Amino acid sequence: MAVQGTWLNLLEWLPLPAGKLLPAVIQDEASGAVLMLVDLNQEALELMSATGRVHYYHPAKRKVVAKGEASGHFQEVLEMRLNCRGDQLLLKVRPAGGACELGYQSCFFRRLTPEGWETVDPRVFDPDEVYPEIAFSH
Amino acid sequence: MAVQGTWLNLLEWLPLPAGKLLPAVIQDEASGAVLMLVDLNQEALELMSATGRVHYYHPAKRKVVAKGEASGHFQEVLEMRLNCRGDQLLLKVRPAGGACELGYQSCFFRRLTPEGWETVDPRVFDPDEVYPEIAFSH
Repeated sequence: MAVQGTWLNLLEWLPLPAGKLLPAVIQDEASGAVLMLVDLNQEALELMSATGRVHYYHPAKRKVVAKGEASGHFQEVLEMRLNCRGDQLLLKVRPAGGACELGYQSCFFRRLTPEGWETVDPRVFDPDEVYPEIAFSH
Repeated sequence: MAVQGTWLNLLEWLPLPAGKLLPAVIQDEASGAVLMLVDLNQEALELMSATGRVHYYHPAKRKVVAKGEASGHFQEVLEMRLNCRGDQLLLKVRPAGGACELGYQSCFFRRLTPEGWETVDPRVFDPDEVYPEIAFSH
C-alpha cells in the first residue's frame, strides 16, 4: 500500500544532479502492465516525493508535468525499485485511468505482426473528450 | 508463442538510423516482472531479428551483446510492442535464467523503504559461478 511518508526522503536516497535525467519504467501494480517509459529529473523527484504521484519530464513540452494533470488520470506511486547500477527506476503505480494520451491503458498498445505494427489493445477513453484543447502531433 | 519469422522484418517495420539508440523494456512474459531496461541500436535489432533472442548495446562494454552470451541466460523474444510515439519498445520474453548479472531474476531487485534501498528479491544464481571471469565494478 502507498505510504506517502516513504517517498519523503526520495532525494536523500537517490541524489540526482541538476540537469540529469533518470529513466523510469511505469508499471501497473495490479495488472503488471507496463504503462509508460519516462524520464525523471530533480524537479520530478521532488514533486513525486511531495505528492506521491508520478511526475516526469515531458520532452515535447520541455517541462515537468504531473501524469494526469490534464486528464485526471493520475498515477499513485505504490512502490519504487532501483536497478543494479543505480541509474534506472521502476515505479509500480495505481493508475486512475489510461496512461496513453491516445486513449489506451498503456502507451505500448501496438504489437509487431508479420504485416507490421497492429493495435491490439482496446481504447479505454476518448482522447478528444479527455484532451479537448490538445492538438496531437503524433 | 514465439514465431521467429515474425521478427525477420523487424528493421523493415522499425527503421533505426545508424548511431541511434532505442530504449527497450524487457518484461518476463509469464510473470509480468520487469527484468531490464536496455538500449538497442541497428546491430542489436538485426541480431534480434536473426536469432529471436534479446541483444542490446552494453554501455560498459561499448558493444552489442547477446543477453546470456556469458551466462547462458538467453531471453527468447515472444512479443514486441511499440509505444505511441514510435521511439520505445517493450519486449516480452521467456528468460532462460536470471537477468541481472548480480544474481537476481530482475535488475530491479531493490525497493525503497523509509531506511533506504533494500534488497527484497532472492538471488536465483551465484554470480561468481556464472561469471567467473568477470570482475564486477558495481
